[in-house]
Amino acid sequence: MERIYASYWLETGDDPRRAAEVIAGEQSSGTFVALANETPELKLRSGARVERLDILGHSATPGLPGGMPSARYTQCALELSWPLENIGPSLPNLMATIAGNLFELRQVSGLRLTGLKLPQAFADAYQGPAFGIAGTRKLSGVAHGPLIGTIIKPSIGMSVDETVQQVRELVAGGVDFIKDDELQADGARCPFDERVRGVMRVINEHAERSGKKVMMAFNLTGDLDQMRRRHDLVLAEGGTCVMASLNSIGLIGLQELRRHAQLPIHAHRAGWGYLSRCPQLGWDYAPWQMLWRLAGADHMHVNGLRNKFSEPDESVIAAARSVLNPVMPQAALPAMPVFSSGQTGLQAADTYRALGSVDLIHTAGGGIFAHPQGVAAGVEALRESWVAAMEGVPLEAHARQHPALQAALGFW
Amino acid sequence: MERIYASYWLETGDDPRRAAEVIAGEQSSGTFVALANETPELKLRSGARVERLDILGHSATPGLPGGMPSARYTQCALELSWPLENIGPSLPNLMATIAGNLFELRQVSGLRLTGLKLPQAFADAYQGPAFGIAGTRKLSGVAHGPLIGTIIKPSIGMSVDETVQQVRELVAGGVDFIKDDELQADGARCPFDERVRGVMRVINEHAERSGKKVMMAFNLTGDLDQMRRRHDLVLAEGGTCVMASLNSIGLIGLQELRRHAQLPIHAHRAGWGYLSRCPQLGWDYAPWQMLWRLAGADHMHVNGLRNKFSEPDESVIAAARSVLNPVMPQAALPAMPVFSSGQTGLQAADTYRALGSVDLIHTAGGGIFAHPQGVAAGVEALRESWVAAMEGVPLEAHARQHPALQAALGFW
Repeated sequence: MERIYASYWLETGDDPRRAAEVIAGEQSSGTFVALANETPELKLRSGARVERLDILGHSATPGLPGGMPSARYTQCALELSWPLENIGPSLPNLMATIAGNLFELRQVSGLRLTGLKLPQAFADAYQGPAFGIAGTRKLSGVAHGPLIGTIIKPSIGMSVDETVQQVRELVAGGVDFIKDDELQADGARCPFDERVRGVMRVINEHAERSGKKVMMAFNLTGDLDQMRRRHDLVLAEGGTCVMASLNSIGLIGLQELRRHAQLPIHAHRAGWGYLSRCPQLGWDYAPWQMLWRLAGADHMHVNGLRNKFSEPDESVIAAARSVLNPVMPQAALPAMPVFSSGQTGLQAADTYRALGSVDLIHTAGGGIFAHPQGVAAGVEALRESWVAAMEGVPLEAHARQHPALQAALGFW
Repeated sequence: MERIYASYWLETGDDPRRAAEVIAGEQSSGTFVALANETPELKLRSGARVERLDILGHSATPGLPGGMPSARYTQCALELSWPLENIGPSLPNLMATIAGNLFELRQVSGLRLTGLKLPQAFADAYQGPAFGIAGTRKLSGVAHGPLIGTIIKPSIGMSVDETVQQVRELVAGGVDFIKDDELQADGARCPFDERVRGVMRVINEHAERSGKKVMMAFNLTGDLDQMRRRHDLVLAEGGTCVMASLNSIGLIGLQELRRHAQLPIHAHRAGWGYLSRCPQLGWDYAPWQMLWRLAGADHMHVNGLRNKFSEPDESVIAAARSVLNPVMPQAALPAMPVFSSGQTGLQAADTYRALGSVDLIHTAGGGIFAHPQGVAAGVEALRESWVAAMEGVPLEAHARQHPALQAALGFW
């Protein structure tokens, strides 16, 4: 019978085997008291199963408060499995099963979801990304290398005219990709519809002249009808991408947007910190992004190397790898990782080396805007950093032939 | 101008004033580098404002890793405000603004959203609970006192026939409210449609005989079309409540369900642990439940006193109070708190004393099922515990006149 597998990092003040069984019980047929109806047959048929429990270490203090007091806490790698028939291939019900009440158990002083393996039925039931890597390359006209991108800044507060002016500079500067900030959707100072019309006029004019249509991810995050209507406007105006904040709209929001959309969905992870910043609690990125790719995300944010946030580089790379990995052997559902936050060309070579792929979007704000020779030179410098990275040429050596890059090295 | 106010518990290794300004900047017009476009006028108009910053204490070690290293970390009470016009009255965009990237900042070694004050525009833009306390009392026929409830157990694995049999016992036993487990939505062993038809036959027959229609919260969690269709079936079969897991469906899921629904929405918080279990990170319940009530939740789970999970009693009561408090002075949007987890009549008096209200649902599993004289006696014992609590009579004294309660005291 097909099963769902989820892996956890677990810390417990209880006997680890007992704690694992309590978690398995809580998330399937068990409850706090023994019930006559919970027969051995029922447990065997519907109970979650402890597939693996490896002791990793011990500590004298608990990672999280509120658990059962103990002289010693044990850290473990735990894998549980559930029969698919408990919930069927349903993402919302998967969420309640693999990430429901278990985090609150007293047997738990630390619990983090680290991995997920799903039966193919999920790939049959959900649409996955409609565009992914190949579709994004086709629409943006970037056949090789990363998409060189940037973000409209200041995050919020500019008028439509100011935004259009910024886009004009970026488009003239040769950028491949632009995104709205996640704080800017349909503010009174910069209404979505006017912004789309103004920005697309610039992008379309440039495309007619140059043959290159810059991909702009318009942040349509909102109520469902708003998102559908905004998507339709972007499409009608000739736009090629829409953006939504996943934690704002939830699984149903993304599923419904995907059903409606005819454009790639750029998925923002704003709020990811509250799901992940405590190492003893919450979610690793790998299982989390899998749910959203099944639901239809084409681009997934992964932060960036040496970012200005608190995430370590190895976590960033693990996240980006997970986005490039197949969701399952039978259904790759490829999506594109988006690198951002404090990025310049200085991170290109290390990103390429660590990831082994250029199927990504690399966005820089200050790294482009602050170039002393202007936006075009900023874009060129970032792009040439990637050429150097892909050719295995040291950045300084490559810069000798590329003045824009040379100038950038001074301020990056 | 109308503003949105959010309060946080903040810990920082930076100067607290600077950290507060960085957070305010990150969540509004600022970015990591100074930009020409970010004029003083723009900042004044659109920037988030630090309304309050009170130092609470210091520690030598950070609550969360990854932040800037420091010899000393400062804990503060922080209040920020934003102009409503930045996002308009949009719940999804509110989420990205008050609970977006800020948790990941290096200036942050602890951040928890503790409070939220919204302008009336949000109450005008969203429907809120359609039934709330009054509607739930009317549909369930319980005019006074708490709804005495229970949960179908084992959580998952029973057939439709077994479920119907359990409901039959509960209904005959005089229970007011029954809910599906959050793990049971439309499993192959207990398909939603068959379960609803079978259960409602029992509930309807009993209602015809007795005049009392037991409220059953059917867990319709699923994709949007599934939820709508399942709601319609419950309605057509004469059911009076549907249930959904909020973290599974997200804000759009609840908003759309609310738009469609003609029945109270029983909101399950499965996964709440990963949002709240680390004291230095995430969400307090009060601001969290406010979003869901605006979106339309009629019943909100709050755990229970002396529960079997890790949540302390004061947190449970604070959560329940927040559900009974008005969302805003101009719009109460009343919802009903749901107490559960390891509950018996022993918690009735303390719950009543701490809450000062009986506008609640009190669900017990083992506390009802395990009664030596059967389910009816279990229900009666729990109900009489509440009578004693409301009349201020000690449980033992009240039990002398009520044999079912007397017998329950032996095993609770």
